[in-house]
Amino acid sequence: MNVFIVHAHPEPQSFNGALTHHARQTLEGAGHKVQVSDLYAMKFDPVSDRRNFTSVKNADYLKQQLEERHAFEVDGFVPDLKAEMDKLEWCDCLILQFPLWWFGLPAILKGWVDRVFAMGFAYGGGRWYNRGVFWGKRALLGVTTGGGEPSFAPDGLHGHIDMILYPVQHGILYFAGFSVLPPFVAWSVARLADEERRQQLERWANRLRGLWDEEPVHFPRLEDYDDNFRLKTAP
Amino acid sequence: MNVFIVHAHPEPQSFNGALTHHARQTLEGAGHKVQVSDLYAMKFDPVSDRRNFTSVKNADYLKQQLEERHAFEVDGFVPDLKAEMDKLEWCDCLILQFPLWWFGLPAILKGWVDRVFAMGFAYGGGRWYNRGVFWGKRALLGVTTGGGEPSFAPDGLHGHIDMILYPVQHGILYFAGFSVLPPFVAWSVARLADEERRQQLERWANRLRGLWDEEPVHFPRLEDYDDNFRLKTAP
Repeated sequence: MNVFIVHAHPEPQSFNGALTHHARQTLEGAGHKVQVSDLYAMKFDPVSDRRNFTSVKNADYLKQQLEERHAFEVDGFVPDLKAEMDKLEWCDCLILQFPLWWFGLPAILKGWVDRVFAMGFAYGGGRWYNRGVFWGKRALLGVTTGGGEPSFAPDGLHGHIDMILYPVQHGILYFAGFSVLPPFVAWSVARLADEERRQQLERWANRLRGLWDEEPVHFPRLEDYDDNFRLKTAP
Repeated sequence: MNVFIVHAHPEPQSFNGALTHHARQTLEGAGHKVQVSDLYAMKFDPVSDRRNFTSVKNADYLKQQLEERHAFEVDGFVPDLKAEMDKLEWCDCLILQFPLWWFGLPAILKGWVDRVFAMGFAYGGGRWYNRGVFWGKRALLGVTTGGGEPSFAPDGLHGHIDMILYPVQHGILYFAGFSVLPPFVAWSVARLADEERRQQLERWANRLRGLWDEEPVHFPRLEDYDDNFRLKTAP
């Protein structure tokens, strides 16, 4: 199997760095192929606009989705985006590895999505959710937090981790067709002792060894919605 | 009153551009002062790392929050971040104006938060939520969407807009102490006729005229949580 890890942390020696390093070792050790996009090391530019394209559809007014669809038709994406698109097509499983910054993706990773998940390539023409482009592929989030697990409980101070990750898990990954596995969350990593960190790395390795057997998170299917995009029956 | 609009759209002629232009006119016409950070026009760099600082606390290992706290103590933020921090302190109301990209902030705006809302300056030492740094200030989101309103209903295809915006409204704005007003959402703007766009601009102007009288969104207060950061009583 082919695994694509998109890694977003500015410090190579960080626990996020250790998680990605350990993931590569574990997966390669199990006979899988791994590619890593280390966004900070690549100096990935997360700002989405005309810089995404070598092509131009409308020079007078930038409508990003229109330019994306056009670029997809005429092979008009810049090489650094095409390289990421190739890795997405190549992979059987996508892993986004990041620290939770302001309850979301670090900007460098949000911009990787903004730019790489372009209309035409990643969605469009009725291809979304369970009819999405990447249907058949798996995806999961590898997340580290500052706060502890109780503060991310359903009645926790910051709100339920599932709700906080919903825009990413449902709105990005499932939208594009991925089967989303439960997130791997390492809580409050700055406060962990060395032995606890080793335990977290081993827990991560165990998750990765079972990647192909795990049951994805349940989200409704397009067939569950009416023509007005509302659920046919109460959830 | 002082209003700070942070604007994140790459096309000046866009409907987002019209909303920000109309907001400035409306607010200034009512005697308020307005500053706009037009992030694309400013070529704002959204990537957060050592580039945020002129100071260095630990040159061997980048722990972003530690460097932020140190920079706050020694006046070590780079000038473009200090300028944004000054506008945050100056304002009585913060408006984030953006198109919903992948169910979240465009990366250029997420990175504005990642970099400007630094530990020490925007939170830390028990200053969060209703004891937050910006307590007493108001904030609201001005959002445009691709999808229509039904798909963002509680039983809608994309999920409830309140849930999608929760990480921003609760996790960023309320975390830093802002009283969060209900979001202004212009649905499916690409499909609007000219007359409908005028109506949306007028609806926005009406919201802005009532900015100081509106009831904020209700979120629990720190006093509602126990020492383990769980609600004392069921929500």
